[in-house]
Amino acid sequence: VGDSELEKIARLAARLGAPGPGIALGIGDDAAVLDPTRLAGASGPGGRRLVWTIDEQTEGTHFRRELVGYNDLGFRSFMAAASDVAAMGAEPWCALCALALPGDFDDAALDDLAEGQRAAAETVGAPIVGGNLTRAAMVSITTTLLGSCDEPITRRGARPGDRLWIAGSVGLARAGFLALERGLRDRRLRGAIAAWQRPMARIDDGRAMAKTAHAAIDVSDGLARDAMQLALASGVCVVVGEERLQAHTGAALARAAEALGTEALDLALHGGEDYALLAASDRSIEGFTEIGVVRDGEGLLLAGPSGERVLAPEGFDHFASAL
Amino acid sequence: VGDSELEKIARLAARLGAPGPGIALGIGDDAAVLDPTRLAGASGPGGRRLVWTIDEQTEGTHFRRELVGYNDLGFRSFMAAASDVAAMGAEPWCALCALALPGDFDDAALDDLAEGQRAAAETVGAPIVGGNLTRAAMVSITTTLLGSCDEPITRRGARPGDRLWIAGSVGLARAGFLALERGLRDRRLRGAIAAWQRPMARIDDGRAMAKTAHAAIDVSDGLARDAMQLALASGVCVVVGEERLQAHTGAALARAAEALGTEALDLALHGGEDYALLAASDRSIEGFTEIGVVRDGEGLLLAGPSGERVLAPEGFDHFASAL
Repeated sequence: VGDSELEKIARLAARLGAPGPGIALGIGDDAAVLDPTRLAGASGPGGRRLVWTIDEQTEGTHFRRELVGYNDLGFRSFMAAASDVAAMGAEPWCALCALALPGDFDDAALDDLAEGQRAAAETVGAPIVGGNLTRAAMVSITTTLLGSCDEPITRRGARPGDRLWIAGSVGLARAGFLALERGLRDRRLRGAIAAWQRPMARIDDGRAMAKTAHAAIDVSDGLARDAMQLALASGVCVVVGEERLQAHTGAALARAAEALGTEALDLALHGGEDYALLAASDRSIEGFTEIGVVRDGEGLLLAGPSGERVLAPEGFDHFASAL
Repeated sequence: VGDSELEKIARLAARLGAPGPGIALGIGDDAAVLDPTRLAGASGPGGRRLVWTIDEQTEGTHFRRELVGYNDLGFRSFMAAASDVAAMGAEPWCALCALALPGDFDDAALDDLAEGQRAAAETVGAPIVGGNLTRAAMVSITTTLLGSCDEPITRRGARPGDRLWIAGSVGLARAGFLALERGLRDRRLRGAIAAWQRPMARIDDGRAMAKTAHAAIDVSDGLARDAMQLALASGVCVVVGEERLQAHTGAALARAAEALGTEALDLALHGGEDYALLAASDRSIEGFTEIGVVRDGEGLLLAGPSGERVLAPEGFDHFASAL
């Protein structure tokens, strides 16, 4: 999300935000949080909170049809939405999808797309229960997911003294996208291409962190951008340790970066769409690796061998963000 | 929805449909129906069912930017989704919106759009609690709404012997769209233009019918198409009475049709986007007008002065439908 886009979201939030019965958390996180037991006419103690998110993947912005198979497109668009549910520490429940398709989109393509969506829905345990179909000049896939949890993890609870934890790769999906775009078939890029084509929403990791994390976000727009979002929402300073991050991304990203002639650290900091989970916690979280600390202050720092520097969230070429 | 689009929806339903805990009704109605008390971990008697719908309005298919103000665009896109909640006899709860916007979409336009959405959200009592923002070549507005009710009215319960009831105008919005498209400023078209620009989801009428209707659908794709959907879903024959329909659409539609040089009956049968409610019930419903009957059999008939004829759902120029 660029600055102008953050401003757009702030404009929208200022105009659209409104309280209501059963709305525990509105605009500004990975998902809204709802309490159905607060609805007029509801009775009994009820139980779990609902989390609710929407994500749109658009031709020309998120993908080009000639670079991605429809099955992968269906799969990854569903996973992008499911990742927001994971980031709240919630269990996916069910989904709706809205498909905008050009007139020349044939039945075989539709079957492939639906099969990719179904496979992702089955993987995360959230069936598609409805949707909408419309004609459009470009392909667009919008997925909205409901999930449930006892107490959601928002972006807002990181505290000075917490450490920063990550589950899942960062940068690899961006490397895969670049490889596809450039038509590279280097074997060092195979894992990266798979990371872009078939990302996995980290539902189990979300569940694991739900017990201990103070705040969390999924890495969809790049580690720098999303860590900054967490810092902003929590009113803290987040410091990413360069060596720890590079140890985490490891040989897989280093090889892919080498094949692309670029820096692994740049990919790790600014590449999006791996759907890793980033959490702040004062205790270790199973399946997560420590990559930094949370301090008093504001903004985002990178701590390298030659000291700390301010990390500007840039380098990702499209805007796409949760309101 | 044309035949090929009904086939597309059937293909999707066959591939995507899957049961799950707390899912009372999946693909194939105005909205999915959910029971949050059936979620794992939920406790107590809970209470109301949730209904859940998604609708997308796309530039070039549903509107042209040069013919509609952004405020109206925000308003009507929200109302299109809210109408599905009304058609289930449910109360709107809250909404998410996904906006796809071109790079040249400026802040003033965004403010207008959000203001239209907010006004509609406030009118139906369902605040926008989150969303997504992405760049795209064309403007697209996707709205997903949650509503709640004790027992939803689906499309499936119409019985032979029921009568067909309607609340709200049909055909007028289509006349308004044609007037805008042709740049006509005839005073006879003012009401029609307003009907297209500022449609109202009929929440109160939906509430009124919830107690007595056996089946219901909102008229978004044209009376013929949507009555046919209700007939198909219920396994009955629906007979629309031409005289009763024309008495219902009355002088307002007749004047608009005259100004356009077209037939009021064609507009009433095939024009969409008024968001009237159509219900089958063996008793009268407050606020609704009787326009036909439900019989044993299948399909859709128009009963005119010279007898009955099969009514083919055609004439509407885009596909856009709930899965």
